[in-house]
Amino acid sequence: MHAPPDAPSKDAYAEGAPVARKSELRELLRLAPGEPVELAAHDTAATPGAPGGKQASLADAARTGKKLARLQERLWAAGTAGDRRRVLLVLQGMDTSGKGGTVKHVIGHLDPSGCRIHAFKAPTAQELRHDFLWRVRRELPGPGEIGIFDRSHYEDVLVARVRHLVPPAVIGSRYGLIDDFERGLAEDGVTVIKCFLHLSFEEQRRRLLRRLDRPDKRWKFSPADIDERALWPAYQEAYELALERCSAPYAPWYLVPADHKWYRDWAVGRLLLEHLRELDPRYPPAGFDVAECRERLLRET
Amino acid sequence: MHAPPDAPSKDAYAEGAPVARKSELRELLRLAPGEPVELAAHDTAATPGAPGGKQASLADAARTGKKLARLQERLWAAGTAGDRRRVLLVLQGMDTSGKGGTVKHVIGHLDPSGCRIHAFKAPTAQELRHDFLWRVRRELPGPGEIGIFDRSHYEDVLVARVRHLVPPAVIGSRYGLIDDFERGLAEDGVTVIKCFLHLSFEEQRRRLLRRLDRPDKRWKFSPADIDERALWPAYQEAYELALERCSAPYAPWYLVPADHKWYRDWAVGRLLLEHLRELDPRYPPAGFDVAECRERLLRET
Repeated sequence: MHAPPDAPSKDAYAEGAPVARKSELRELLRLAPGEPVELAAHDTAATPGAPGGKQASLADAARTGKKLARLQERLWAAGTAGDRRRVLLVLQGMDTSGKGGTVKHVIGHLDPSGCRIHAFKAPTAQELRHDFLWRVRRELPGPGEIGIFDRSHYEDVLVARVRHLVPPAVIGSRYGLIDDFERGLAEDGVTVIKCFLHLSFEEQRRRLLRRLDRPDKRWKFSPADIDERALWPAYQEAYELALERCSAPYAPWYLVPADHKWYRDWAVGRLLLEHLRELDPRYPPAGFDVAECRERLLRET
Repeated sequence: MHAPPDAPSKDAYAEGAPVARKSELRELLRLAPGEPVELAAHDTAATPGAPGGKQASLADAARTGKKLARLQERLWAAGTAGDRRRVLLVLQGMDTSGKGGTVKHVIGHLDPSGCRIHAFKAPTAQELRHDFLWRVRRELPGPGEIGIFDRSHYEDVLVARVRHLVPPAVIGSRYGLIDDFERGLAEDGVTVIKCFLHLSFEEQRRRLLRRLDRPDKRWKFSPADIDERALWPAYQEAYELALERCSAPYAPWYLVPADHKWYRDWAVGRLLLEHLRELDPRYPPAGFDVAECRERLLRET
């Protein structure tokens, strides 16, 4: 049961903001479905829509965090009363682009009980025995939940393409399968928000060097990370194809410049907020006699 | 591979506190294994070990949260290098005792990526086809993770006993099965921390009334909550038995007075901190030539 999409927001618990407004950040960062994507044309250090510089954005992100937590509670509450709607945030990007950092700093504002987070690694032997979407379906959020994918089914058209893990024809068919999958999710009440964290080759170098220089960061580093950099152009091309072929109105890709961590966190939080506001989840009405329950509680000893 | 338990803490990333010290709160709240438990003898509004009143405790809890996050990162980092240790926090308590609130306020300080949270509800038809520990095993934390159970296998000797869901002999055998299960976890590197959130009948009434009075809280209420209150003495007795029969040195029960939410959150956070400090997880050493990797990174174009 979905809430009627055209129900106006008039109750006392609405966030106050106009519902379903055209919000600037979504407009600024969304990739147009079907249009060619040229990543080099997008500045990785840009900060489109930011409320100011680093300090102002951090302050705004903190306020956004509190708003997110309130809306998440309403989404969860609605879920307990039959509202099937839920959110799936997909985070993709090159190594060090900050997928994990985004979870920590943005999702960290939410009630962890209502989040379902999964980091997809190289598929296990068992996972490889199934189609590539099998393991993804198992990690989807339930009604009222906010799901977060740190990497996702897109790896199956990214690393799989760059590393020739499957024949080209199989890769080719996967774009359509992903599109079908995401359309099915949308029709089942899942708001799919896909963020590509766009990092520069130079900024990745700086971040890898920092991991090497700090003993408390070295565990995040592997020499294989350097080998992967040799394939940077192939990855960028694979991303361009994925972003172009799997951007649909019901599951848009947002290109988030990620050289500035403060911008990345602010932007992902803001995108999530705009979508949650549009969903406008409501606390369900009481399905019982409040006055009678009150009396019963006061009467008992 | 567990870290050697007697390795002294000397590296630059230790938290500074003495390792494996006898810490006061654990001593204060732990129920002695095998000793009879009389819940009525424990004040639900007590605040043993608190650093002061509400304000001082909230401030201390915030500091504890930051320390928890740092230790959690070390636990996770160690897990990436073969350290199998992990933590399982079990939260039990009557309705409104604050299991969910504890997750929000204590676990909310952690990086959500490293937490594995599960709220156990009434078993599904599929779950009932298996032994009562089957569904619990599926939700255990992996190496480096902090698992949180909001309710747990203890429901199978609590509601199952009070509501006569299975024959008494089956309940009787479950205490031993739970003990075996938890000993197996401990031997596999799981630090099991079980917290009973101890609430008074009167405070539950106040909290239920508040849920009725606030439209944004009503979704948490069900008239069945009042029916359950009629069984309060039976539940207290079931808890006493569970706390007495399943408290072992490797999986102790802590009795956390829960009438004051600020105390409950402070105490659970503090218990978690004391256990993590004792574990003293370490950032793993680099398994590669740092200087060589540095050079390779700087050389490439």
